[in-house]
Amino acid sequence: MATTGSKSTQSAVDTTDLEKQLADAGLESDPAAVREILAGLAAAPLSLDPTESLGLAVEARTETLDQFLLDCRKTIADRFEAALLETGASADRLAQLRDTLAARNLTGFVVPLTDEHHNEYVALRAQRLAWLTGFTGSAGLAAVLRDNAAMFVDGRYTLQVQDQVDGSLYDIRHMIDEPLEEWLADHLKAGDKLGFDPLLHTPGSVRKLETVCEDAGAELVPCTDNPVDAVWTDQPPPPISPIVPHGDRFAGESSAKKRGDIAASLTDRNIDTVVISAPDSIAWLLNVRGGDVENTPLPLSFALLHANGEVDWFVDTRKLTAPVRQHVGNAVSIHEPDALESELKALGGNERTVQLDETTMGVWFFDTLEQAGARIIKAPDPCALPKARKNDVEQAGTRAAHVRDGAALTNFLAWLSGQTDSTDLDEISAAAKLQQFREADPSFKGPSFTTISGAGANGAIVHYRVDDESNKAIQAPMLYLVDSGGQYPDGTTDVTRTVAFGVPTQAQREHFTRVLKGHIALARAIFPEGTKGSQLDVLARLPLWEAGLDFDHGTGHGVGSYLAVHEGPHRISKAPNNTALQPGMIVSNEPGYYLTGEYGIRIENLVLVCERGTLENGKQLLGFDTLTLAPIDRTLIDADLMTVEEVAWLDDYHQRVRDTLSDLVADDTRTWLENVTRPIKEG
Amino acid sequence: MATTGSKSTQSAVDTTDLEKQLADAGLESDPAAVREILAGLAAAPLSLDPTESLGLAVEARTETLDQFLLDCRKTIADRFEAALLETGASADRLAQLRDTLAARNLTGFVVPLTDEHHNEYVALRAQRLAWLTGFTGSAGLAAVLRDNAAMFVDGRYTLQVQDQVDGSLYDIRHMIDEPLEEWLADHLKAGDKLGFDPLLHTPGSVRKLETVCEDAGAELVPCTDNPVDAVWTDQPPPPISPIVPHGDRFAGESSAKKRGDIAASLTDRNIDTVVISAPDSIAWLLNVRGGDVENTPLPLSFALLHANGEVDWFVDTRKLTAPVRQHVGNAVSIHEPDALESELKALGGNERTVQLDETTMGVWFFDTLEQAGARIIKAPDPCALPKARKNDVEQAGTRAAHVRDGAALTNFLAWLSGQTDSTDLDEISAAAKLQQFREADPSFKGPSFTTISGAGANGAIVHYRVDDESNKAIQAPMLYLVDSGGQYPDGTTDVTRTVAFGVPTQAQREHFTRVLKGHIALARAIFPEGTKGSQLDVLARLPLWEAGLDFDHGTGHGVGSYLAVHEGPHRISKAPNNTALQPGMIVSNEPGYYLTGEYGIRIENLVLVCERGTLENGKQLLGFDTLTLAPIDRTLIDADLMTVEEVAWLDDYHQRVRDTLSDLVADDTRTWLENVTRPIKEG
Repeated sequence: MATTGSKSTQSAVDTTDLEKQLADAGLESDPAAVREILAGLAAAPLSLDPTESLGLAVEARTETLDQFLLDCRKTIADRFEAALLETGASADRLAQLRDTLAARNLTGFVVPLTDEHHNEYVALRAQRLAWLTGFTGSAGLAAVLRDNAAMFVDGRYTLQVQDQVDGSLYDIRHMIDEPLEEWLADHLKAGDKLGFDPLLHTPGSVRKLETVCEDAGAELVPCTDNPVDAVWTDQPPPPISPIVPHGDRFAGESSAKKRGDIAASLTDRNIDTVVISAPDSIAWLLNVRGGDVENTPLPLSFALLHANGEVDWFVDTRKLTAPVRQHVGNAVSIHEPDALESELKALGGNERTVQLDETTMGVWFFDTLEQAGARIIKAPDPCALPKARKNDVEQAGTRAAHVRDGAALTNFLAWLSGQTDSTDLDEISAAAKLQQFREADPSFKGPSFTTISGAGANGAIVHYRVDDESNKAIQAPMLYLVDSGGQYPDGTTDVTRTVAFGVPTQAQREHFTRVLKGHIALARAIFPEGTKGSQLDVLARLPLWEAGLDFDHGTGHGVGSYLAVHEGPHRISKAPNNTALQPGMIVSNEPGYYLTGEYGIRIENLVLVCERGTLENGKQLLGFDTLTLAPIDRTLIDADLMTVEEVAWLDDYHQRVRDTLSDLVADDTRTWLENVTRPIKEG
Repeated sequence: MATTGSKSTQSAVDTTDLEKQLADAGLESDPAAVREILAGLAAAPLSLDPTESLGLAVEARTETLDQFLLDCRKTIADRFEAALLETGASADRLAQLRDTLAARNLTGFVVPLTDEHHNEYVALRAQRLAWLTGFTGSAGLAAVLRDNAAMFVDGRYTLQVQDQVDGSLYDIRHMIDEPLEEWLADHLKAGDKLGFDPLLHTPGSVRKLETVCEDAGAELVPCTDNPVDAVWTDQPPPPISPIVPHGDRFAGESSAKKRGDIAASLTDRNIDTVVISAPDSIAWLLNVRGGDVENTPLPLSFALLHANGEVDWFVDTRKLTAPVRQHVGNAVSIHEPDALESELKALGGNERTVQLDETTMGVWFFDTLEQAGARIIKAPDPCALPKARKNDVEQAGTRAAHVRDGAALTNFLAWLSGQTDSTDLDEISAAAKLQQFREADPSFKGPSFTTISGAGANGAIVHYRVDDESNKAIQAPMLYLVDSGGQYPDGTTDVTRTVAFGVPTQAQREHFTRVLKGHIALARAIFPEGTKGSQLDVLARLPLWEAGLDFDHGTGHGVGSYLAVHEGPHRISKAPNNTALQPGMIVSNEPGYYLTGEYGIRIENLVLVCERGTLENGKQLLGFDTLTLAPIDRTLIDADLMTVEEVAWLDDYHQRVRDTLSDLVADDTRTWLENVTRPIKEG
């Protein structure tokens, strides 16, 4: 497996220095091993408390050694960063890749932006697309043939891709309107051999490639040894960061109980083993957390859960702290990631029935097991649904986290309201200030995603990420949109508020009010069990549609419990979804409106699916409890457009925000909060 | 193909008599052939003007001969009817079937309720399930094994099946909760050979059977010669009824244009031929109508449409009138149904690429073509979408038909309102009276489905069909629900009204008003192109959900243009649907509420998808024009539960009903109509 091979770090850190520092601290650690761990730490994101990871590198610590090790880590991390996005390297890298392909008798290769976990955030090591093409967006795909290459991005990145990717090397294509398969159909020749990494493509994606190859008379060739890795000489190793227990007081249910429940369902269906490749599912199953990727506290790993409730866990053991080894217990056997392939082959050799999720797993798993003799059952990741249905402890946790997060955001909004004459206020400084307010809470672990801090026209860019070039001053008259969230041990938050600087226009007020009407319609909805999010989506859009407006993103996504801020299997969107909303699920309620070049509006609260009595036929009725607590800008509301019921909802919500947060916010904020949460009809 | 073999009629009609009558009329027709045609006529439903079919049997007509022929037809039809549902015959028939299976070395057979067109209504000949088991519901399935048999029905028929089907012969099972595959898994033994008719099972249904057989070590055996037909000695022949042109003044677009458009899309996709098995699609494509099954004016036939726009039409030529032969023209080659198989094999032999719809076609088509060497492309019936998007002429037609149908229904409702003291009024007599009002329009061709006439508790049975036993008097205090529709050359109607006899209770008023609120919310909706019906469904249900109520059926189905009253591919329901609502589509808007044992409420109008301006991004906005015109019972409305906008919609609707119908209804009705359509707030 490509994941498990880790290259030696091209010594950014001198071993002699390291040896000396270790000796000075009285340690006999192997400097080469320590350097490898530092490289792994450098390949993982930096946590708010970076020294907490150093225990993985050395047994005993001194302040001097800590500082030295952190410096080493930083040197390596900088080097990774610089090498990844080296300016002007694309032509050379593309040529090297083509040479390697030729040497392997391949005429082409597909480079997706994903890792072997098909996770939202990928580690540095898996940034093959960025390394090859220079493109740093969050979604994309390249295809390289002998004489042609193409880069595929979606509508969000049409401008960025032109900045970052050399148009003389790559045809730039729209991922949806001009898909990969179409381009391949136009450019593949009979006899071509198109390579792909079977860990990075699901069976469905492979089937599409097969069809296009077949039609062209070309051959599709799986490459278990990714040719990009072969030419990426300074590719970072897999990330290393400490894996820690996620205690029962947060998890609410023991790992043994979770494993037992899923194992029972395997037994019921005569399945011997399920392979779990989604790292957040494994984190949930084993009640552990980590820090291998940005924004989501998860360790990268694989697991096999057997029908007897035991688990084989494939994880870089250097990430394991002593408490976590004890925490997972004897029913969890720990293996290095390299061992996964032979373990799968052993399952096949014993003709086991093995469950796989074809929507999130590479075709490599299917092929490896099938060729070894296993019987494969395709079914969704068995952790996805129980993970989404938060238990009572998790529900109490997320409510508590939202109170603290709401206090921080409210302090920020109050502070922001006083900055109308500031000349220093811009998107970057505002986002930093918000993070400061969150960091005041000692339980805050970091952002749950990169804050979207969009002033004026930047607010209209739905997936906007401010950088030095785009950074805009926030000043009246202007709308400012801030979408942010935090990770706390008891919950994950995600909230958007849009505020007016100066007096908003009537058009802005109408647009905001229509977004709010949609938000309230969804928040108030009562619906029977079995209802899917896609059935409710219209409620958030109808007030916009009535005025000829809409927004071009989903209305709501699931949210984890100190895990991924985007998690399935439920969601609220126009697109159909097979998973009904169920008690305990968290989902965002985030309609918006975006006037390109002018402003963006979004009002996002997280809501919890709760019981609301029963239908006559005994079916349960459900509704939403709003978790997020922060005022909604009343200067943007045109109360004449709202019904009596809508106004009542907003007044109730504001009263709850005020009652809950008053004692938790700063004194200045409290006065401000009293004012901005008074009943709407009081003007 | 099993369809094309027609057994000789077990002579219910004496040939000597027939010969004499023909001679008396001066005709030299072959009495045997005439008798075959009469049997075919008897196997088709009786039209409102039964003599119009007789031209198919004889060249010249006299009144005496017509009467004689009609009598003959009736004798045969009665015999078919009696034989089909012979009391106490089930055990014998089941035994005969088992003998035949044994003789064919089969251990079992599956008997679905469908025909080779997978059509909503099947001809007498295809009522194999009723003949075998006695069950006359509209959906069901039987499985027969050597020592066991089971009957599967859905929730609508749990009572009826116990009345009609011998529980000592068949296990009675719930089709959804206790599906066929589960029962087969329990009862199939290794080595068993389970037969099925490949014309009556789609590939998806066959895959499920294959899996269950494989798991049991049994074999699944296609039987092109249906064993039920072999033992059903008096099985009716395929129906015969005249096929007539559907002129351009109704169709709005020539068949040549329709064929050309679809052919162009075949050419674009490198497809040589599409097989069309849905009879309403063929009726639409060729601009013809017929009368082979109940309620839907279609001829049973198959067609091949080729990429050059030419059609091979497989149809019993005895159904063709001279005008229709001329009407379809030279680009349509006419063949007897027997020729289909060899024609498909010829396509295969020429290695043609052939498109099939796997959701509505028997696996026989796939197997036959594949074995012969064709390349198969699975895609939806290409007529379905253009058929659903009514053109301007069809739209004008349906609007006109709805005016005439609304006048008839309004006359009926006015008459009904005067029957409060009648002792003769019951569900059957009311339905008959309604049909009388419709028949007053000379263009009325017949009902578009069997009228649901439900008084009190019978109204709560969603698919209620009154019979002599269930027939209930309509008398105060009571709610009465009537769901009916008509076929007219310019359009098909479907409307439900619920009226109160006596003073309704407050609960009835609240329930009715909530149904009405849902109806109005859907009627008023504005939505962008691309929106599917499943996204809008919630609008019709939310006011019910808020009170802990719901209804257990879809909210809306597509409707044909003088064709099927239920047609796809769009619909409005909780279940996801892939077809967006598009301008020109007709769909029903029919929320309801049903209190078992007490009453049923449904308010159904047909609506037409119309343009409503554009979104900012240029996308088209759509909404619904309500087609149906008939007053909604104001005595059942609690105006306090309605918003200002809802009241305004209802008042506008009632004014349009009044303005449009006043001059078309009877004098008494007009006065009544003025009163029942006055503004709601006038009390």
